Amino acid sequence: MTQFPRRIALLGSTGSIGQQTLDVVRSFPEHFRVVGLAARSNITLLAQQAQEFRPSLVACFAGTPEIEAAARAAFPNVALGEEGLFEVATHPDADIVVAATSGLQGLEPTLAAIRAGKTIALANKETLVMAGHLVMAEAKRTGVPVLPVDSEHSAIWQCLRGEQSNEIKHLLLTASGGPFRHASLEQINAVTVDQALAHPTWRMGPKITIDSATLMNKGLEVIEAHWLFDIPYERIDVVVHPESIIHSMVEFVDGSFKMQASLPSMHLPILDALSYPVRLDITETGLVRELHWADIGRLNFESLDVARFPCFRLALEAAGHGGSYPSVLVGADEEAVALFLEGKIGFSDIAKLIEAVMQEHQYVEHPDIATILETIDWARRKTREKMWSNFSYK
Amino acid sequence: MTQFPRRIALLGSTGSIGQQTLDVVRSFPEHFRVVGLAARSNITLLAQQAQEFRPSLVACFAGTPEIEAAARAAFPNVALGEEGLFEVATHPDADIVVAATSGLQGLEPTLAAIRAGKTIALANKETLVMAGHLVMAEAKRTGVPVLPVDSEHSAIWQCLRGEQSNEIKHLLLTASGGPFRHASLEQINAVTVDQALAHPTWRMGPKITIDSATLMNKGLEVIEAHWLFDIPYERIDVVVHPESIIHSMVEFVDGSFKMQASLPSMHLPILDALSYPVRLDITETGLVRELHWADIGRLNFESLDVARFPCFRLALEAAGHGGSYPSVLVGADEEAVALFLEGKIGFSDIAKLIEAVMQEHQYVEHPDIATILETIDWARRKTREKMWSNFSYK
Repeated sequence: MTQFPRRIALLGSTGSIGQQTLDVVRSFPEHFRVVGLAARSNITLLAQQAQEFRPSLVACFAGTPEIEAAARAAFPNVALGEEGLFEVATHPDADIVVAATSGLQGLEPTLAAIRAGKTIALANKETLVMAGHLVMAEAKRTGVPVLPVDSEHSAIWQCLRGEQSNEIKHLLLTASGGPFRHASLEQINAVTVDQALAHPTWRMGPKITIDSATLMNKGLEVIEAHWLFDIPYERIDVVVHPESIIHSMVEFVDGSFKMQASLPSMHLPILDALSYPVRLDITETGLVRELHWADIGRLNFESLDVARFPCFRLALEAAGHGGSYPSVLVGADEEAVALFLEGKIGFSDIAKLIEAVMQEHQYVEHPDIATILETIDWARRKTREKMWSNFSYK
Repeated sequence: MTQFPRRIALLGSTGSIGQQTLDVVRSFPEHFRVVGLAARSNITLLAQQAQEFRPSLVACFAGTPEIEAAARAAFPNVALGEEGLFEVATHPDADIVVAATSGLQGLEPTLAAIRAGKTIALANKETLVMAGHLVMAEAKRTGVPVLPVDSEHSAIWQCLRGEQSNEIKHLLLTASGGPFRHASLEQINAVTVDQALAHPTWRMGPKITIDSATLMNKGLEVIEAHWLFDIPYERIDVVVHPESIIHSMVEFVDGSFKMQASLPSMHLPILDALSYPVRLDITETGLVRELHWADIGRLNFESLDVARFPCFRLALEAAGHGGSYPSVLVGADEEAVALFLEGKIGFSDIAKLIEAVMQEHQYVEHPDIATILETIDWARRKTREKMWSNFSYK
C-alpha cells in the first residue's frame, strides 16, 4: 500500500496517542484522511476533533448512560458502546486502523480490523501481551501488516528493513530506566505517587507512567517485541539508556548493530506507521524537533539492575511461562497500579501483589479470547482480594 | 549474487586490508575462495599467503627488477607489473575483486574489473576521490555493485538497506577526531611525526594515520560518500565521535536517524562487503569482539572545529570545485604527507602546501584517466617545488 491519501480509523482519539495521531494527520492533509473516530468519554474533545477532521463515523464506547446521552446530543448518528468501537475498527472506507485505546478494550476491535483486512497501527501494548498468539496468527492468515506505534518497536522495525530475520542475533530494547534508575531498594520501597508520576523523559498517562517507574512497561515491551518480530525471548535484551535518544537496536549475527534515534517524540513512530513504506518530510511541519548530535553531546548506557525492579522480572517470568500467564500479569498490574494510585498500597507492593496473584493462577496453554478475558477478570479480582486479605502479599 | 563459495581476487594482499581480508576468508572456508592475489613488494608474505590459499594466479606489481626477480624465484608463473595487477583484477574465475592497493595504483585495475563484470569491494579511497565520475558511471553502465570496505561507508550502506535514496536528508559521517581533537592551533602547529603517528583508535599505515590526524582522511571520505551514495555535498556532514563505536549515520526526511555500530574492526566491513546481501555468523570465529553497551557506558559527540583542521576544509573545497581538483588534492596530499614523514616540513605545512598547489591548478571539468594521472603528477611535482622554493607556502 503506497497510495495517498490513506484513510484512517482511529480508536481512542482523545487519548495521548490519539491526539498525536491527529497532529500528524493535520500536518499532512494531502496524505491522510480521518474516516472514523472512536473515543471513550471525552465528548467535548471528540466533538472538536469531529468538526476539524469530518469523519463519516463517530463512536463513543463509554458504556455509561450520561456520557452516551452527551454523545448523542453532540452527534445524532453516534455509534455507541462496544459495537460502536467495532464499527469504527471495521469502517469500510478505512485503510489503516490506529489502535490507541488504553488497556484491554483494544483487543477484540483490533482482531475485527485484522479480519476486515485493515493495516493495523498498534499503540496498545496489552493487545499483543495478552493475545499475541491470536493476533499475529490472524494477521498472518489474512496477510495484514501489524505496524508498531511506539518508539522502541518502531526503532527495531526500522532497523530490520532490508534485513533477514534469520540474521538477527538480539533485539536490544533501550529503557530510560525511569525516575528511580539510581534509587536504592529502600528508596524505591518508599516512593510516593507524586514521585512515581514524575517521569524524566516522556509525558504519558498515569498508568503507563507508573509502569515505566516499575519497569513493568519495559517487560511488556519485551513481550510485544517477541510477538511483533517473532524472536524468542532469550534473544531479546534491555539496556538502560537514560537520554531516550536511541530508541532501540538490533544486533546481527555478524556483530553489527543497527540503531534508530531521534529526540523523544511519539509523533515520529505514529507518522512512520501511517506512511510506511514511505518516509514523509517533516521539515516544514514542526512536528519533530531536529536532533543535533553535538548539542546532545553524550549518550549513556547501563545494565538493568533487575533486583531493584521486580515487575520487570515478573513480566519476563510470565512471558517465559506463556499461555495465559501474560494475561494474569496485565490484569494484576492494572489493578495493582490502580490501588497504588488510590493510595491503598505502597510502590513496592505492586510487584508483591502481582507475584502473589501469578502464584495462584491455573495455567492455560492456548487461551482463546474468552479465556483471556476471564483470566484478566480473575486476576483483577484476585488482586483486590489479596489486598483486602492483607499482608498475604507482604 | 547470493551463492557461496564466492571467488575472490585480492589486489594489495600484503597490506593491512589485504591481510584482514584473508583473515575473513580463513574464518569462512565454506564461503570464500581466493583465486588471485596481487601484492606490491612483500614477496615473503605473498608466498605464505599463496601457500595457504592456493590461488590460481599470483601477481607482483612492484615494477623493480630485484623484487620481480624474487617474485619469479618464489612463483615461476608470477604475473608482473601493472599487467599482473590487471590480470588479477580481471581473473575469469573471480566473482568479487577486493581493491585494497594503497594510493593511485588501484584506479585502472578497478575500472578494468568493473568492465569485466566483477563486483567491487572497494577499500581504496583515492579511486573514487580522483575518478568517482568515471568509476560510478562505468559501474552503472555495467550494473556492477561497488561495495564499500571501510567502517564509515559500510555503516551508511547498511543503514540505507530497505530505504529510498530520495528520503535521505543527510549522511552523517562520524570522525574519531584524531589524536589532536582537543589540541590548540599552536599545539597542532608543533606536532611531531611520532605524535601524529599515534592514532587513538585505529591501527593503520603511516599515510592514512597522518591523513587521520589532519582530518584529510575524513574529507576524502566525504568525497567518497558523495560518489558511492549519489548524495550532494551539502547533505553530507561530519560529527566527531571519539569512541569510534557508531561508524556513521543517515538522517531521513522524517527526522529519524539510523546508525550502525560495532567495536572498531576492519574485519566487519570487509566481511559485510564479501558476503552481501547475506550476514554471516561470526560467533564462532573470534573475528569481531562482542560489543556490550553497559561496558561501553558512554558515547560522546562534538562538532568538528574546521578552523583547526584546514586539510578537511581543503578537501571540501576541492570537492565543491569538482572536476580535476580532487586529483590535485590527492597528489598534493600524498607528497606533502611524505615530506612531513621525511621530516622536511612541519605538520601544519601539509595543508599550506596543498592549498598553495590547489591555487595554481588549471581546472579541467571532466578529466579522463590520462588527465587525472597527469594532474596527480603535476600536483606532486608542484608540491616538492613549493617546498624547495620554500616559504612561498608559509
